[in-house]
Amino acid sequence: MGCVFCKIVAGTAPASIPYADGTTVAFLDINPMTPGHLLVAPRVHAESLAELDAEAGAQLWRVAQRLAAALRRSSIRADGVTLFLADGAAAGQEVWHVHLHVIPRWKGDGVKIGFRPGRPSRSDLDANATELQTALRALTPGT
Amino acid sequence: MGCVFCKIVAGTAPASIPYADGTTVAFLDINPMTPGHLLVAPRVHAESLAELDAEAGAQLWRVAQRLAAALRRSSIRADGVTLFLADGAAAGQEVWHVHLHVIPRWKGDGVKIGFRPGRPSRSDLDANATELQTALRALTPGT
Repeated sequence: MGCVFCKIVAGTAPASIPYADGTTVAFLDINPMTPGHLLVAPRVHAESLAELDAEAGAQLWRVAQRLAAALRRSSIRADGVTLFLADGAAAGQEVWHVHLHVIPRWKGDGVKIGFRPGRPSRSDLDANATELQTALRALTPGT
Repeated sequence: MGCVFCKIVAGTAPASIPYADGTTVAFLDINPMTPGHLLVAPRVHAESLAELDAEAGAQLWRVAQRLAAALRRSSIRADGVTLFLADGAAAGQEVWHVHLHVIPRWKGDGVKIGFRPGRPSRSDLDANATELQTALRALTPGT
């Protein structure tokens, strides 16, 4: 397969790697939102969250949380940190190997997140919660 | 303290809750980016990632990953899902109790993420990686 993140994991594509362990590799994004922007990816090829084992997901998070702490203690500017994951084309996913973004932030960094907040009623929100309780019950345990 | 998320966790502020466990509570955002927008928060009051125990963080992620799967199987529109966390005012954090956003997405949903991608050289990226290796070594193990 032509997955560039699999090649980075395998060491056959160039990458700048501050951290790697048995399940997870972190590397610098080559088109960063801000300098120091990192991607944390599982070694296993999983296209989407649905394909990613729950414990592999939890390890992505542990590594991201630790990298956020490292960014704040490094000389890379990071007054804040954004963690971000796009699951699916509709969410803006472009590389089909799960990756969690760890993005250094500061006031005036040029990163903009725009949306029009909804104003749902409590009964709308309760209906959403009920929908999701039903969907959660239908999931296979541990998936 | 006046933390509204602590009140939701304690059951003393209104919330629509599709999932809760011993460490984590998920509830519907009252100003959603899109309908079904969820927040996943630890029961313990932690203002920032730096204050959040690594295992509590990993559990936030497990719950978020499971809620993403539930959204996709529910009747709530979710062609994709965005996971998002703002750590610090510079990242847009507004409520000072850690929370991970789980946001249903579709093409044309009005959510925009804008930035000007950088074009760093490989030596810039390698320098970032070296910085972070040093910062990671200086972190307390497990923090």
